Amino acid sequence: MPIGESVNPPSPIRSHPIENMPLHGVILAGGRGTRFWPRSRRRKAKQVLAVMGHETLIQQTVARLRPVIPPERLWVITNGYLRGEIAQQVPGIPPAQIIAEPAQRNTAPAIGLAAHLIRRRHPDAIMAVFPADHVITKTSHFHAVLKTAVQGAAAGSMVVLGMRPRWPETGYGYIQFLKKPPKSRSPKLLPVERFREKPDLGTAKRFIKSGQHFWNGGMFVWRVSTILQALERYLPGTAALLREIAAGEALEKLYPQCDNVSIDYAVLEKARNVMGIPCEIGWSDVGSWNAVYDLMPHDNSGNAVRGQAWLLDSSNNYVDTGGKLVAAVGVDNLVVVDTPDALLIIRRDRAQDVTRVVKWLEEQKREDLL
Amino acid sequence: MPIGESVNPPSPIRSHPIENMPLHGVILAGGRGTRFWPRSRRRKAKQVLAVMGHETLIQQTVARLRPVIPPERLWVITNGYLRGEIAQQVPGIPPAQIIAEPAQRNTAPAIGLAAHLIRRRHPDAIMAVFPADHVITKTSHFHAVLKTAVQGAAAGSMVVLGMRPRWPETGYGYIQFLKKPPKSRSPKLLPVERFREKPDLGTAKRFIKSGQHFWNGGMFVWRVSTILQALERYLPGTAALLREIAAGEALEKLYPQCDNVSIDYAVLEKARNVMGIPCEIGWSDVGSWNAVYDLMPHDNSGNAVRGQAWLLDSSNNYVDTGGKLVAAVGVDNLVVVDTPDALLIIRRDRAQDVTRVVKWLEEQKREDLL
Repeated sequence: MPIGESVNPPSPIRSHPIENMPLHGVILAGGRGTRFWPRSRRRKAKQVLAVMGHETLIQQTVARLRPVIPPERLWVITNGYLRGEIAQQVPGIPPAQIIAEPAQRNTAPAIGLAAHLIRRRHPDAIMAVFPADHVITKTSHFHAVLKTAVQGAAAGSMVVLGMRPRWPETGYGYIQFLKKPPKSRSPKLLPVERFREKPDLGTAKRFIKSGQHFWNGGMFVWRVSTILQALERYLPGTAALLREIAAGEALEKLYPQCDNVSIDYAVLEKARNVMGIPCEIGWSDVGSWNAVYDLMPHDNSGNAVRGQAWLLDSSNNYVDTGGKLVAAVGVDNLVVVDTPDALLIIRRDRAQDVTRVVKWLEEQKREDLL
Repeated sequence: MPIGESVNPPSPIRSHPIENMPLHGVILAGGRGTRFWPRSRRRKAKQVLAVMGHETLIQQTVARLRPVIPPERLWVITNGYLRGEIAQQVPGIPPAQIIAEPAQRNTAPAIGLAAHLIRRRHPDAIMAVFPADHVITKTSHFHAVLKTAVQGAAAGSMVVLGMRPRWPETGYGYIQFLKKPPKSRSPKLLPVERFREKPDLGTAKRFIKSGQHFWNGGMFVWRVSTILQALERYLPGTAALLREIAAGEALEKLYPQCDNVSIDYAVLEKARNVMGIPCEIGWSDVGSWNAVYDLMPHDNSGNAVRGQAWLLDSSNNYVDTGGKLVAAVGVDNLVVVDTPDALLIIRRDRAQDVTRVVKWLEEQKREDLL
């Protein structure tokens, strides 16, 4: 049952009749996903890969949303390489709602474009933004969070989901709540003090200690009118371009002229009406092969295997065999990913450096492997 | 020009007219070569693989012998899995001289059988025995050694080639010369005191220090009459079976009844007329992927690569890509061998343990991978 059409009383925002504000979902699926090379390629980025389980990440994202947002109200912003694949993988989403950006321009223009398109359909709509390629294991928690977020959005807030941090990660942005949020099972809307960009390790450790800082998981809920007003105010050039595009001007020509900037940096850091919800929903951005390793079940030696492998005196490896048999003897802490035309072997603690391999392939003009 | 038909005077054995003793070569090619899995399989054992360079090891062996023994006088003892492949690879050897053992019975029966077959052709023949799958880099040295060996054989000795040891290897047998052989560029026949089986490390170190002990490379030269007499004396049961086989009795039925024993153990350890030649001929038995690594050219980081690989912050690896691109980051001292249906990753210092992988595959009845 779509959230937009049913909110359980009693609720402090009962005064806002959100029955009239249908909820739309915007799935951001434009990422290259170079960190999953060699499994990921330009036409097979992370979001369209079955990195975990049998469904692809975008299929999991759509399935997770289905109880609260039906596919007919989902919008996907992606790129030309992936559009066809995504249309195949999520046939429930109307093809007209799967939009290929002519150029990668980060999240602010993508979200603004989606807001215009949704407003045309439902001027009072609330939109919820989700990355296509994250994992959330506690689905019913997630649904409860979303309901609370919609209530906040209906009341005029820009709502951001904050993930309770599990380690001092330097690769994520953080949301600093005004006060240290209490541990609570039921979702709470709390005022956000500020957004923090990716910290260094010392800062990240202080963040964790403070208890006020939560990971920014890139999930946002707001009225389309709220975000469009905020864009007009904080990113007027891009806002004007998006208005022209929405009025029927050439997407191909104008979109590349938009600012290449994230919604966090362009709008949320400056806006006053930002509320956050501290979450523990089993979230992971699945940002590297090492993250996949962490999420998978391990054997007694700490190995995680997809496919058929025999590991002798080997520990803490991630092995993705790509259909063949892999035999390993005396090796530890490796990521091994085999595909028909490329094989990756990388130390787990260097899994981020897959991007360097991809960069090298680009320099070598190995289009066949990109 | 075949050695059997021309020996340069002056020579101490000039009195033996070896012009009448044609030289035949026996190539022992029955090994399973499990240490080169996954490249090696039952039907693609080490000897029929291009482990080093473009030719297979048996092709290299035949080519190395060509200046001294023409292919028409070569005999190959192999097994049913490999016979067809070998016949294709060395078309110069008459197919009737490529014999499949019905069962693996180590070197004594194989050499005895070959001796019978050669004697039927040339009763006065000298036979030289070579493993099919070793590497010898100093070919002209090798030819000189062979000439000296033939002279010794013509004089009635059983001649064994001893390789000057380069490290205290525990995986080889050793030949102990009566006296420490002098360093010399020209080959010398010297009395052998005894044969030593594979030593433990302490013993191997003492062997090296003594200067008297040389690696037994499994290469022997003798008259067929000499070895057949020795077999009658030291291994009479097998000798009788081989006589029956040579007289036309069923190879299939009788050969499996032969003793499963090496010529070293069955005969050479007991015989009195054994002479050795200390050699430095660039010999390697190419006994493991690590041996291949040692023999190959290395880059500045000590990596040896067959195929296409990009190795970042990685050192001392052997990578055989099997036609795909391999990217490695932050890995050291590994052997990586990729094939269409199996991938091996093994620490270099455990390269011998490939046999354990093969054993496991046998237990799993993975005939497709054996």
